[in-house]
Order: sequence, then structure tokens, then C-alpha cells
Amino acid sequence: MPMPGRRLASVAVRHEGQVYLFDCGEGTQVPYKELHVGLRALRVVMVTHLHADHCLGLPGLLMLRAQMPDPGPLRIVGPPGLARFVDHVRRDLSMYINYELVFHEWSASTGPEAHRDELVRVVWRPLDHTTFCLGYRLEEHDRPGRFDAAAAEALEVPRGPLWGALQRGETVQTPAGEEVTPQQVLGPPRRGRRVAFVTDTRETPAIGALCEGVDLAFLESMFLEEHVDEARAKKHMTASQAARAAAEARAARLVLVHLSPRYEARDLDRFAAEAGTHHPAVQVARDGEVIALPLPDAAEAVVPPLETH
Amino acid sequence: MPMPGRRLASVAVRHEGQVYLFDCGEGTQVPYKELHVGLRALRVVMVTHLHADHCLGLPGLLMLRAQMPDPGPLRIVGPPGLARFVDHVRRDLSMYINYELVFHEWSASTGPEAHRDELVRVVWRPLDHTTFCLGYRLEEHDRPGRFDAAAAEALEVPRGPLWGALQRGETVQTPAGEEVTPQQVLGPPRRGRRVAFVTDTRETPAIGALCEGVDLAFLESMFLEEHVDEARAKKHMTASQAARAAAEARAARLVLVHLSPRYEARDLDRFAAEAGTHHPAVQVARDGEVIALPLPDAAEAVVPPLETH
Repeated sequence: MPMPGRRLASVAVRHEGQVYLFDCGEGTQVPYKELHVGLRALRVVMVTHLHADHCLGLPGLLMLRAQMPDPGPLRIVGPPGLARFVDHVRRDLSMYINYELVFHEWSASTGPEAHRDELVRVVWRPLDHTTFCLGYRLEEHDRPGRFDAAAAEALEVPRGPLWGALQRGETVQTPAGEEVTPQQVLGPPRRGRRVAFVTDTRETPAIGALCEGVDLAFLESMFLEEHVDEARAKKHMTASQAARAAAEARAARLVLVHLSPRYEARDLDRFAAEAGTHHPAVQVARDGEVIALPLPDAAEAVVPPLETH
Repeated sequence: MPMPGRRLASVAVRHEGQVYLFDCGEGTQVPYKELHVGLRALRVVMVTHLHADHCLGLPGLLMLRAQMPDPGPLRIVGPPGLARFVDHVRRDLSMYINYELVFHEWSASTGPEAHRDELVRVVWRPLDHTTFCLGYRLEEHDRPGRFDAAAAEALEVPRGPLWGALQRGETVQTPAGEEVTPQQVLGPPRRGRRVAFVTDTRETPAIGALCEGVDLAFLESMFLEEHVDEARAKKHMTASQAARAAAEARAARLVLVHLSPRYEARDLDRFAAEAGTHHPAVQVARDGEVIALPLPDAAEAVVPPLETH
């Protein structure tokens, strides 16, 4: 539940001027505004499950977005019943929404993709919680390989628009009439960044699939190890369990979210300590924290790196 | 809408260990916890209307209250459709509630009383807003008149339990066998304290009826006078309109609530200034503010004053 000084877990991924939001518990619209995350930019909201602390802030955020003229459609993905929940609140409270809500609910036949656009794809997997719950993995599309300027010059492709066309994957013709293919001047595609958002769940193989090789994993850790039995009974994880899962999946960084309100602020370091024995790069999420996620090979990029906010 | 540093309007009246809550917008549970208002003590929630900024925090507060064992029934009063809203969210989000919710919705036949118990009665009146909206007036029951100790002694009623019985309104018999009635030793009943909560509405005679002679009136003032036309169109009030209504109703003190988020923190003094030309005791509500409301005749009370928190 939202606490004085500790908000509910929600993560906004900002990428190329678009925003992808994971979960939206009560009060999420306040830090959303405070951090200037961007309302028109909000493109997809992904809800893990139909418990209040993960979606009760959604109606307020939708209304906030309706404060601007013509903000454009919004895609909302999540478990079966999500559209019904929003629709009930919308009608019961006469909500004003001046844009289209496009719902996409998981079902056994929807396949592994929750969302795909020109920038990213998002995959989802059922987790193991007290109610049907989805974990997410957001993958930036792989980028073209590095451009080999020396090779292009050797092939007599003049610097300028033709270089751009090759970088976009198009075959071009040199002034001398020779065809040059992208493969001749581009290195192998470079993988996009990957982020996982996994809450609420107990240990389950789906976590490994979602977190495999990600740059950043947000994993729930409701409890400390001393409450491992309660974690099992309530279908949550301890900090250690989350860290082991992240380590096994070779997630580069781990951020612990969804800590039980029973723990005081002074206990939070223990989460990082317990998890730290299993994973080398752990932190406990803090309200309003901004985490930059550089390109994996940013230092070597020939083209300017993508804006990472 | 909830803002960084400015929460939605909600007022908790604490009286004799009971709590009466007016409205519950998104996020209300956080200051409720922060101020230790009391969850078991929460007896009645009174909702003005079915707009999100007045009731979307209710499900969260209900769940918060369910964190304690056996908190006892909770009465929820408000406009028609309130129970349906709560029931929809409750079912759609599988809310855990371990106590009885007792709904009482206004209808043309419910009469003027929203609630009555051993401490207070609450009356409601439809206001004039863009959707059906109720204003409330909470009245502490009148207290017995002042006990005249000299008269009791003259009538040979010994100090002790018989004095208490007389104060409770019972007729007693003196050791000498004489009957003494409360009227012989008590002054006229002393009026209880009165609080009005009126939002959202434009000017309407109901405001006067609700605020007549109250000790404390919470009135909406969405706009400053420069936006009076917008106030009229959107069925809200300006600070001046609220202050005039409070002055005409002889409300002793006025607290302005529900100020438009368009106004910056530095504008808030203008609300008090504009209202102050019409009413002598005006303040703008601040997050988390606690207002003590002494008994009207506390200085002269023979019995110890009621606990006013």
C-alpha cells in the first residue's frame, strides 16, 4: 500500500520520446507529474495484475492525460478483466477521456507479444501469484551494425545521403554505377537494450525467461529471508530469491521493488545486503529515482548514440 | 487532481474517539496514515459526489482498514451509485475487506439525515454541480445544560452518583425522599458544535441551509474572481462567492478547499484575500492541517470539556 514517503511500484521507461509504463497503483500520477515523465508521450501502460496496488491509479492517470488537447490513443495491456475494471470506473465516475483507449488483454491465444511498435517489443509471461499475474520484458529493437566508413570509401560510395541509406539497410548505387549492399559496409546488428519488470510472484521459471540477459531487471522482493515461509505462503519472493533468479538469468543489474510496508526505512539496506550475496549489482528502488541505461556499446558507436534521457 | 505538494480535499472530523470522514480522493489513505487519524475509529465516510477526485481513494482506504483484525462495520453514505462503484472495484480487483460495508445512498425519500448516532447527526442536501452532488452538515448533539451545584445542594441532593444521574437527565430521589428533576438543577441545553462540508457546487440556497450558524465551514472555491465566468460555466464557486455564502449563513470560520490546480502555491494567498473582503475568518486549507474546534462555551463549562483532539 502507498506509504508516507514510499510510493507504490511503478516504472516508466522513456525511450526516444515515447513512454512505456509498467503498473499504476494509487497515486502514481503525482510522481508522474513531478518527474515530468510526459503525458502525450505515454504510449503503452502495461499492468501486471488486477490487485489495487498495481492498477488503482490508472483511472487518475487516464484523466490527467485527458487534460491536454488530443493526446492521441493509448494502449493498455494486461490481464483479462483489465478493460472491464477501467470501463466500470469510467462509467461509474463519469470520467472524461478525450482519446481512444486500446485494450489488449492476455489470453492463452494472444501469443508471447504484449506490444510491438517501431521502437520496441514487449513480451509477457504468466507468473505465479495469488491471482493471474503477468511479467514483462521490454526489448529495444536491435540496431543496425556499425558503419564501416573505410569500407564505404573503398567502394566509392560518397559521404552523404547514400551512407544514410546504407545505414537504414537499403542497397544503393554508386556514382560509378556499382551496387553496394548494406552487408558490405555494416557490421553485425547490435542488440537493443532490455528491461524486465516482474511483480508479484513467487519463484517460477518464467522469471528466468523474462530476465535472460537483460540490462536491467525490476524484481519484486516483498520480504527479507527471515520471512521466507510467509513469502512462500503469500506467493511473493524474498530479496535473496529475487537476486538468485536475476543472477541465474544473467541480468546485468537488479532493482528490488515491492517491499512490504512492514519494513521501516532503516530495514531497506538489509534487502540490498541479502540480495547482494547472490547478485553483484543490486539496488533498492527509491521514489522518483531516474536510472540511465546507456547503450551496451555506446563507447564504440560510430553513429551518435540514441537519446537515453 | 492530486498535485505534488497539494492533495485532494478530504476532511476527517475526530470527535470522542470516532472519525467522520468527508470525501476520499486518490491518495487520501497516505495522509490518513501519516496523521494517525485512526482506522478502527473510522465510523462513517460521507461522499459528496461520484467524481474521481472525491471518491477514487475510497477502495484504498477500505483495504487499509482491512489490515487490522476485526475493525467493525463501516458506514458509507453518499449519492446514488456509490455502492455500485465500490462494489465494482471490489469485485474487479478482488479486494480483501474483513468487515461489513453499510451503504446508505441518498434518494428523494431518504429524508434530511444522512447519519445519526449517539454523538452526532449528519444532514445532507443536494447542491448544484455538473453531476448530482451532496453537501453535508455534521452536528454534535446538544449537551445538557450547565449543572447548578448550589441548587442541587439547596435541594439536599448529596454530591456523588445522584449528581451524575441528574446530569444525564434522570430524575432522582434525595435521602430525605424528595424527588428532584433535571430541570431543577440544569440550565438550558447547550448547542453542540457544527461543521459543514460543501463541495462541488455553484452558488445555491442549499449552501446557506448547510452552513447556517456552523462553527466551521469547508467550502469549495475552485477559482479566483478573475475566472468567475468559468466558475459559473463549470458549476464551481469563486473565493468571493464562497465567502459571501458563509457570511450570509453566519458561519463562524471558513476554510477554502478544492482550489483549481491551475493556481500556483504563490496564488493561494489571493484566495484568502478575496474571500477576506466578505468574511472575517477565512483560511485556505493546507495539507495535513489540524484544526481544533473548542466547545462554544468551554471557558464556562462546569463539567470537563469533551476531548477535542
